[in-house]
Amino acid sequence: MLSKNQIKLIKSLSQKKYRQQLGLFSVEGIKGIEEFLNSHFELESLYTTKTKFNAPESQVIVVNASELQRISSLKNPNTALALFKIPESLKVDTEGLIIALDDVRDPGNLGTIIRLCDWYGVSDIVCSSNTVDCYNSKVVQASMGSLTRVNITYLNLEDFIDNQCRTIFGTFMEGENIYSSNLIDKGVIILGNEANGISEQIQKKITKKLTIPQFGTIKETESLNVANAAAIVLSEFKRRSIEM
Amino acid sequence: MLSKNQIKLIKSLSQKKYRQQLGLFSVEGIKGIEEFLNSHFELESLYTTKTKFNAPESQVIVVNASELQRISSLKNPNTALALFKIPESLKVDTEGLIIALDDVRDPGNLGTIIRLCDWYGVSDIVCSSNTVDCYNSKVVQASMGSLTRVNITYLNLEDFIDNQCRTIFGTFMEGENIYSSNLIDKGVIILGNEANGISEQIQKKITKKLTIPQFGTIKETESLNVANAAAIVLSEFKRRSIEM
Repeated sequence: MLSKNQIKLIKSLSQKKYRQQLGLFSVEGIKGIEEFLNSHFELESLYTTKTKFNAPESQVIVVNASELQRISSLKNPNTALALFKIPESLKVDTEGLIIALDDVRDPGNLGTIIRLCDWYGVSDIVCSSNTVDCYNSKVVQASMGSLTRVNITYLNLEDFIDNQCRTIFGTFMEGENIYSSNLIDKGVIILGNEANGISEQIQKKITKKLTIPQFGTIKETESLNVANAAAIVLSEFKRRSIEM
Repeated sequence: MLSKNQIKLIKSLSQKKYRQQLGLFSVEGIKGIEEFLNSHFELESLYTTKTKFNAPESQVIVVNASELQRISSLKNPNTALALFKIPESLKVDTEGLIIALDDVRDPGNLGTIIRLCDWYGVSDIVCSSNTVDCYNSKVVQASMGSLTRVNITYLNLEDFIDNQCRTIFGTFMEGENIYSSNLIDKGVIILGNEANGISEQIQKKITKKLTIPQFGTIKETESLNVANAAAIVLSEFKRRSIEM
């Protein structure tokens, strides 16, 4: 049986403010929870209607379906919801290839970019402070456990870039054709906001502009979805790294 | 001033059943509407609070903000909403490279896949009948006008594939490395459902299995988001076509 205060606390975690205040975030679904349990993330408490988890009994609270419905952010909640502690970000890798997000706002986009980084062995994502919070429940859902394997750091993006000795990459309409560019597996790839692209201040700091060429007969000035652009760019960088 | 019946009709278009019955779908936002106006799509009626459009006066209905709010599917409606007629699908290209969707359900995924096809000059997407409707308002929103340039056909996917003389491609964990595969710009690329991947019946019909290799030290058995996988696969096919 959950108390009113417990329910209130869990529900408050749908807001970034309370996640930061309490240092907690929630994960829903058996598979996701298991991935977090098997990672360096520390469990706070686990609410479940029946599922057995590999977690200390003292942290597991059995709830009924209607209680789970009340604390869940999903329309059709799974059989479990767990609270984990938000970890400290690790030191950002300064040698390899990393991703930097300049105000990416859509939780689904951030979630799939985290999965991409996990897939392509990119250790770090650095985010401008206006980028959507990676502990937002929709990001956690979309990243499908990859959040446990990619280090995400929120910082002042301009300052961060100013301190880099690596190439700063970005994709533009009028850059070098990415398919014929000389790409090495070291640098910072900037991805911009869904509506406005890369901000002016950050654009100035880009040292290598790349273009994903358009094909077909009709070439409109539309852009690709930011996560799809990330997929194509990472694929190109990583493909080259095995051919070298 | 909008009548109750007009409002009811427009709102009913949020459901596929009524879109099909009435042969209409809605587009919101100035830029999107302009793209549809400048395409082969036929305007039914246009509701706007102020914006000037290049459309016959008899089809333009001036509404106030609260009326627009009532007919809009957006939380913060733009200044205009237009109804267009659902066109007949064109004959599917039988020669080049096309995309086939096997029960893709997320509107955002379909929308970004349409944008990708537009970008890479893929003329056709064929969809299983359980694939999300391309005239769903979220698909229209996410495809950003690319819907006017890519031909989308709903059909029996098994029958369609049985009648192909082209290679049938799909991505799997245990396929040929896509980066070193011999790819030609002719074939059908199958993309599967978000949760279950490509269905068993369709899997049997795939003649070339491809793999997007995983990088990094931790190789979990997670999949990529379907639209991101599509981005990487299309990028590989098209890159080769210019190198040939």
